[in-house]
Amino acid sequence: MRAVQVVGYHQPLRMTEVAEPEVTGPFDVVVKIGGAGVCRTDLHILEGQWAEKSGVALPYTIGHENAGWVHAVGSAVTNVAEGDKVIVHPLITCGLCRACRSGDDVHCSASAFPGIDTAGGYAEYLKTSARSVVKIDDALEPSDVAALADAGLTAYHAAAKAARRLRPGDRCVVIGAGGLGHIGVQVLKALTAAEVVVVDRNPDAVKLASAIGADHGVVADGSHVARVLDLTGGDGAETVIDFVGEGGATKDGVAMLRRAGDYHVVGYGENIDVPTIDIISTEINLIGNLVGSYTDLCELMVLAAQGKVTLHTQKYPLDRFQDAIDDLDSGRVRGRAILTP
Amino acid sequence: MRAVQVVGYHQPLRMTEVAEPEVTGPFDVVVKIGGAGVCRTDLHILEGQWAEKSGVALPYTIGHENAGWVHAVGSAVTNVAEGDKVIVHPLITCGLCRACRSGDDVHCSASAFPGIDTAGGYAEYLKTSARSVVKIDDALEPSDVAALADAGLTAYHAAAKAARRLRPGDRCVVIGAGGLGHIGVQVLKALTAAEVVVVDRNPDAVKLASAIGADHGVVADGSHVARVLDLTGGDGAETVIDFVGEGGATKDGVAMLRRAGDYHVVGYGENIDVPTIDIISTEINLIGNLVGSYTDLCELMVLAAQGKVTLHTQKYPLDRFQDAIDDLDSGRVRGRAILTP
Amino acid sequence: MRAVQVVGYHQPLRMTEVAEPEVTGPFDVVVKIGGAGVCRTDLHILEGQWAEKSGVALPYTIGHENAGWVHAVGSAVTNVAEGDKVIVHPLITCGLCRACRSGDDVHCSASAFPGIDTAGGYAEYLKTSARSVVKIDDALEPSDVAALADAGLTAYHAAAKAARRLRPGDRCVVIGAGGLGHIGVQVLKALTAAEVVVVDRNPDAVKLASAIGADHGVVADGSHVARVLDLTGGDGAETVIDFVGEGGATKDGVAMLRRAGDYHVVGYGENIDVPTIDIISTEINLIGNLVGSYTDLCELMVLAAQGKVTLHTQKYPLDRFQDAIDDLDSGRVRGRAILTP
Amino acid sequence: MRAVQVVGYHQPLRMTEVAEPEVTGPFDVVVKIGGAGVCRTDLHILEGQWAEKSGVALPYTIGHENAGWVHAVGSAVTNVAEGDKVIVHPLITCGLCRACRSGDDVHCSASAFPGIDTAGGYAEYLKTSARSVVKIDDALEPSDVAALADAGLTAYHAAAKAARRLRPGDRCVVIGAGGLGHIGVQVLKALTAAEVVVVDRNPDAVKLASAIGADHGVVADGSHVARVLDLTGGDGAETVIDFVGEGGATKDGVAMLRRAGDYHVVGYGENIDVPTIDIISTEINLIGNLVGSYTDLCELMVLAAQGKVTLHTQKYPLDRFQDAIDDLDSGRVRGRAILTP
Repeated sequence: MRAVQVVGYHQPLRMTEVAEPEVTGPFDVVVKIGGAGVCRTDLHILEGQWAEKSGVALPYTIGHENAGWVHAVGSAVTNVAEGDKVIVHPLITCGLCRACRSGDDVHCSASAFPGIDTAGGYAEYLKTSARSVVKIDDALEPSDVAALADAGLTAYHAAAKAARRLRPGDRCVVIGAGGLGHIGVQVLKALTAAEVVVVDRNPDAVKLASAIGADHGVVADGSHVARVLDLTGGDGAETVIDFVGEGGATKDGVAMLRRAGDYHVVGYGENIDVPTIDIISTEINLIGNLVGSYTDLCELMVLAAQGKVTLHTQKYPLDRFQDAIDDLDSGRVRGRAILTP
Repeated sequence: MRAVQVVGYHQPLRMTEVAEPEVTGPFDVVVKIGGAGVCRTDLHILEGQWAEKSGVALPYTIGHENAGWVHAVGSAVTNVAEGDKVIVHPLITCGLCRACRSGDDVHCSASAFPGIDTAGGYAEYLKTSARSVVKIDDALEPSDVAALADAGLTAYHAAAKAARRLRPGDRCVVIGAGGLGHIGVQVLKALTAAEVVVVDRNPDAVKLASAIGADHGVVADGSHVARVLDLTGGDGAETVIDFVGEGGATKDGVAMLRRAGDYHVVGYGENIDVPTIDIISTEINLIGNLVGSYTDLCELMVLAAQGKVTLHTQKYPLDRFQDAIDDLDSGRVRGRAILTP
Repeated sequence: MRAVQVVGYHQPLRMTEVAEPEVTGPFDVVVKIGGAGVCRTDLHILEGQWAEKSGVALPYTIGHENAGWVHAVGSAVTNVAEGDKVIVHPLITCGLCRACRSGDDVHCSASAFPGIDTAGGYAEYLKTSARSVVKIDDALEPSDVAALADAGLTAYHAAAKAARRLRPGDRCVVIGAGGLGHIGVQVLKALTAAEVVVVDRNPDAVKLASAIGADHGVVADGSHVARVLDLTGGDGAETVIDFVGEGGATKDGVAMLRRAGDYHVVGYGENIDVPTIDIISTEINLIGNLVGSYTDLCELMVLAAQGKVTLHTQKYPLDRFQDAIDDLDSGRVRGRAILTP
Repeated sequence: MRAVQVVGYHQPLRMTEVAEPEVTGPFDVVVKIGGAGVCRTDLHILEGQWAEKSGVALPYTIGHENAGWVHAVGSAVTNVAEGDKVIVHPLITCGLCRACRSGDDVHCSASAFPGIDTAGGYAEYLKTSARSVVKIDDALEPSDVAALADAGLTAYHAAAKAARRLRPGDRCVVIGAGGLGHIGVQVLKALTAAEVVVVDRNPDAVKLASAIGADHGVVADGSHVARVLDLTGGDGAETVIDFVGEGGATKDGVAMLRRAGDYHVVGYGENIDVPTIDIISTEINLIGNLVGSYTDLCELMVLAAQGKVTLHTQKYPLDRFQDAIDDLDSGRVRGRAILTP
């Protein structure tokens, strides 16, 4: 089959012919790819940023946001059957460690990550596990939802976790109205009656966020902390979800937070650097967020099927992978780029 | 009555004669002091560190850790009566704001803090509110429990909050085996079956912590992070409660934390300075802790009455306030210094 | 002022002239009534059903669903001022007992209940407490929201409690599409992404529920348990909220419940009568629901201001109180009857 | 190997020679039995009470409380290895359904139950799954802990669930001081600072419960409801855990409950029959409890290793299975009877 591979860092990806993955283990599932999201992480992989962390041997096939149809299943697979339309959770987890047994499979002590440390989905077929495939509604298309598998799932996880504490009348600030932020806004509106305040440097992004449900939009132009404080009666917001995590976002974000508030870290780049006396005197919480669990992905697919979470996509045939990469790199993609074999 | 007052910053406290406080409002409660804790914060007040923050007008009576007997009550007070033995919550809260109505009175939007911004308990009588007095068990003496009113309550609050997530088999690291740490260890042992690991620079303090229930003691000698990792199979602890918050404690503490773990900030001094990528890739939480609520104080008094939380005290007649201050300042107090009028 | 009073059981209400209530205590609030809901409980009071329980001395003024404007406040009142538009929580609570201090004021150990055991709101003025008044949005009218003070608050409390466990993809059955059920459906849609299934004997009520957001309507015609099981893949619903509680509703409701599901009891009349083996083998929970707390009422007023919860009302001048009572008794009221002085 | 089988209902068990179980699936684990608990359910099986429910084909080997050593493992098993000392969770669960993925494996939609619907542990070897084996501490012996696998796990599950709401000062009534009740008391003392009140008809059982940590013992002699109310200031207990569930226990238990309290149903037999008006006016919860999850069993084994939960056992060689059955049936077993091959 055709597959797009990393053949060297700081080199272009290369399409090549590789053997189709086959079911060998009892819980293996081979998925015929319907869509594979092109993510900024893929650019970082090419730059070698993940080389040491993943330890992957080159060449290998990238692509960690995948959806498609079940093509073959191992002997012990009972949750999906050939032909099922599925989205693929980015991790392959063991199912036996303490984290997995508690429903917290993201912290599995023995997981693999196709597209990062083993063969991914820029290809015709992908090998994953029964524990990683979620059946999707008939009305959804794999190429439309593929990007929800990782970026969307991360946004869902943070927003749904934040939602558990948000009550009517609370305010939730969303810093960053890009891909993740848009999903986050839609999830918050679906799961809470909190007021959502979106903050972004880009006025168009703020406008778009308002169009999909944000109650207030604030352009980050230097006066944005003051404007959020104004919107919250001077007290700050009960919750801030920071999808940016760099360029001063964390300092601004903490300054927008109310006493006893929750600051959700999702985007990353800079350090969180806060005096301990500020943390204790206002009793705030700084909460980490990684990608969502399998259960989170099931819930996100429900919201997608209900039409409550949608994503703009720009599709490319698999052969045009280089165009997708180039468009992403130069900011020409609106929403998410998707490769379709 | 006699009262010990701040008459100027960087000047000694002075004992003087002031009018006895009287009931004027419907919820006022005047307490005859049985014991007033001498706290490191009192030293900081004298150094002027709180001058701007509290805005208090000098002279005023200090002392924010108080217990005694109800001496007089306002017309609307129904929860205590003259003669009741009580400990005094450090805050006077409004009872009407959103925080108060949710049981989270520590975040009251209109609170007063006797001993900090209004007359405190280094005196024969203290004026507080019906909302601030907790009746204590017959078997407890005000002068024995007074120091639980603030220092102990802070430790209880953090340990009890941490306990809600701790399951049998989990490990909780307590950084700092001083006054708060000792209360924290006793509370953890009373409320959970988690293993408690105490870390302190002082080998004697570590030994004492083991005597009151810590399962493991680690002297902070440079290899302490490695030793905690060893004790936790290399994974780190599910929870760290940091009663120090300076001198590198926060960096060490975060390094001892397991994936998805909770880091409780209680002590303060330095900045928490952590790369956001570390927060998200391990999905840890940094949790602020202020003093406990009224309900927390009620619960702590139950543990005290059950003999599960005890505190070593060193008592001084009120007239010898300067000795108590001097002993505290020069490290000669074992446990807590208490003034008894 | 004019007030409508119970002068004897099994006798008509009588309008009479009584003294205006005055502020006597520090937390007293006198409200000029803008609307007072006429509730089925008022009919039960006249039938003497509450005589023994409330122990109220006749004559007294009824009416426990009130909203209006603050007319006068006691010396210690800080949360409202004369002229503020408010809805009145049905209970006057002490603020000092353990329940009140935990934010669970409905279980106050010393509460009063205007309209039931002391003078209520079928009158020009009502005396209540600072702890019972919630400021409402400028856009809301007292006579429009009065009925949310008790009936609506009960529905909000149950639906919001249920919502805490409902995840996208879960199903919540609402038994009874009357006044409370309608509020319940709207609250569930505002706070969750769960599918709401409404069950009622009255096809028109089912139709109306669908119009305000229910995802499925089922007429209770004998096959309704089977139909709910069909809608839930044979497994039953994660949650059932029973606003009926009589005529076999509890038996049907439990039969519609999934393993590990929550059955919320709100309506009452019959006994819950379930074999313990069924409770343990499916591990279901039967959850009681009383009226909501002060905090619940604040949240409900947010949803009302956002337009997410609305209520159809039929208004009567106070003088026409007997028409309102008669219309309610004979089923001629659509939505809720409201008296306006 | 030798195995003790049900050969017909209302007939004695029969020891016979059967083939040793073998690993056939990738997650299979064969355990060499070190101890198999003899449970009252085994008597009920012989009486045919489970015939229809389980649908098991006779003859089959009974025994659902098992512990021992891993004898052989399937190709995909990574959590245990040959020779490991283990206790066996009573259910074999699928790991793929929604309940399993949420950590709530007891509600697995495709579970098997060795000893009930497939071959159990009255034998030399038992076949189970990697998902069902929990490694135990070196200091524990399989024959000592086997009975914790089901009876003990049920008690742990209920007590640990109750513990999540119990705060210092709360009271928890334990109805029934038999095998489960004893475990329940020990678990409550290990996980909470609540006061534990034990109620039982048998004065010796009450005495024994006090010896293992109960704070108060009440003999159920007709005045026990009144005595519990006395012990709780007339208010009732925050929590009741009912390990009996018959002979009037549920009625008494609900009468002992405080407003907003939790009634945990564990024992079964009679119907819960409570007026809905009582449920709503006091806002109590009736909470079902089934056996604990895999994670619960891990936690219980921690408490056992810490010496916080112990169980008296009476051991019989496997060949003397009939003596064990007879002793249990006639009340001659103190603690739990265990068969050791």
